[in-house]
Amino acid sequence: MTLTLYHSVESTCSQKVRLVLSEKGLQWRENLLNLRKGDQFAPEYLKLNPKAVVPTLVHDGRVIRESSIINEYVDQVFPEPPLKPADPYLRASMRLLIKIFDDDVHPSVGALVFATALRHQMKEMKSPEELEEHLRQIADPRRRERQRLGIELGLKSPAAQDAIVTLRKVIAEMEGRLDDSPWLAGNSYSLADAAAAPYIVRMEAIGLGPMWSRSSVIPEWLKRVEARESWRRLKDPWGTTSFRDMVARYATRSTAELAELL
Amino acid sequence: MTLTLYHSVESTCSQKVRLVLSEKGLQWRENLLNLRKGDQFAPEYLKLNPKAVVPTLVHDGRVIRESSIINEYVDQVFPEPPLKPADPYLRASMRLLIKIFDDDVHPSVGALVFATALRHQMKEMKSPEELEEHLRQIADPRRRERQRLGIELGLKSPAAQDAIVTLRKVIAEMEGRLDDSPWLAGNSYSLADAAAAPYIVRMEAIGLGPMWSRSSVIPEWLKRVEARESWRRLKDPWGTTSFRDMVARYATRSTAELAELL
Repeated sequence: MTLTLYHSVESTCSQKVRLVLSEKGLQWRENLLNLRKGDQFAPEYLKLNPKAVVPTLVHDGRVIRESSIINEYVDQVFPEPPLKPADPYLRASMRLLIKIFDDDVHPSVGALVFATALRHQMKEMKSPEELEEHLRQIADPRRRERQRLGIELGLKSPAAQDAIVTLRKVIAEMEGRLDDSPWLAGNSYSLADAAAAPYIVRMEAIGLGPMWSRSSVIPEWLKRVEARESWRRLKDPWGTTSFRDMVARYATRSTAELAELL
Repeated sequence: MTLTLYHSVESTCSQKVRLVLSEKGLQWRENLLNLRKGDQFAPEYLKLNPKAVVPTLVHDGRVIRESSIINEYVDQVFPEPPLKPADPYLRASMRLLIKIFDDDVHPSVGALVFATALRHQMKEMKSPEELEEHLRQIADPRRRERQRLGIELGLKSPAAQDAIVTLRKVIAEMEGRLDDSPWLAGNSYSLADAAAAPYIVRMEAIGLGPMWSRSSVIPEWLKRVEARESWRRLKDPWGTTSFRDMVARYATRSTAELAELL
């Protein structure tokens, strides 16, 4: 049996899958892509993943895409320990939270990492002319406009403002769940906990921690997540320390502005 | 045991769920919402569904939201006949197609129903001043701009153009699957077929049929879907004939323009 995971350092979606593979006690081969160098557009990778995103899992030659679908697949093929509640209602509730992370949290955290950190890095590494050239190369005019506003306005950009509103609601939802049970979908660690943890850690790194400071349930849950062998096997939840450090260092420039917003 | 489905006439997501309930041979109470009158914002409904969308299933007092999650729930609680392939790879493949319909097809079909039909209805029923007032009332500036472009440009709006590109890819994906097997995820009708059929019927109604005229696999699959008892129990896949007729009648104004695009 061989399992190969194609993933990248920056990818929270890949971390979700690595947590689940570890919870199952599996060993897998890693194939690390550098998204900044464009490895995801290599013709061999596009054959595995036509959308050019990570992660992709290859299990004995079968190709599985989309992190939440990969995790359900892994849980079916390797049933022990189970990472879904047996109760149908709790299972639906687990899937609802995973969907919220996929649809709402993923783009929101991306927008805020850009608004607090990557934007500063970009301005530092490119001259104003190079920045214009970079924007000109973005084919989709709406995406180009969104990125331009993100660079110019940072946390004041519409995307960042929307992201904060969205994340506030998700944090309230998580706190409600954790008031009732130790894990996000009942009394056992599930696919929902693996889906949420990488995003909460990233939010903390860019200074969003105050969002969940009214209650201790999220910090306590995070401690339980981080005490597990699966988290230790991630070694560094960002993949490499240098990326985390870079993001956290730039994000300090937005600390004061964030403090006002939160 | 009681099952109550809150849904609406215009909602393809509700049809997905009604097909699955019928495939399981279940009886359920219907609670029809009129989205144009704003029933979804009634305080009692917001308690069940804070996002104010349909459908919502209530099963013995337990509230389940999001059509794809509802369908997985129904398949777990009422396991016969199974509507998921037993093989893990096929099951992942089924979930991937359902995700494509949720994430990509749903908004694309919505944009094209607007661009070909609702836009004409809106212009007919509102004076230019009332139209301006309607747009002014849309709180989100980007949504407002998108709707303004949709009304002004119809099929030439960016959203409609993107939607056609997206749907072409999905049709190719469906045709590839149906070249290999009679149903979208293998040899049995599954949650993927229930998820896809309402959208294909709607696409046909607004004149997108030429998209799948190169091959006979989609029309043949649709015949198999429509021959099933579950489709007959839908009676009218749109919920009421009048809504379908209204959309189809307005959409004829875009037939010539569509023919050039397809």
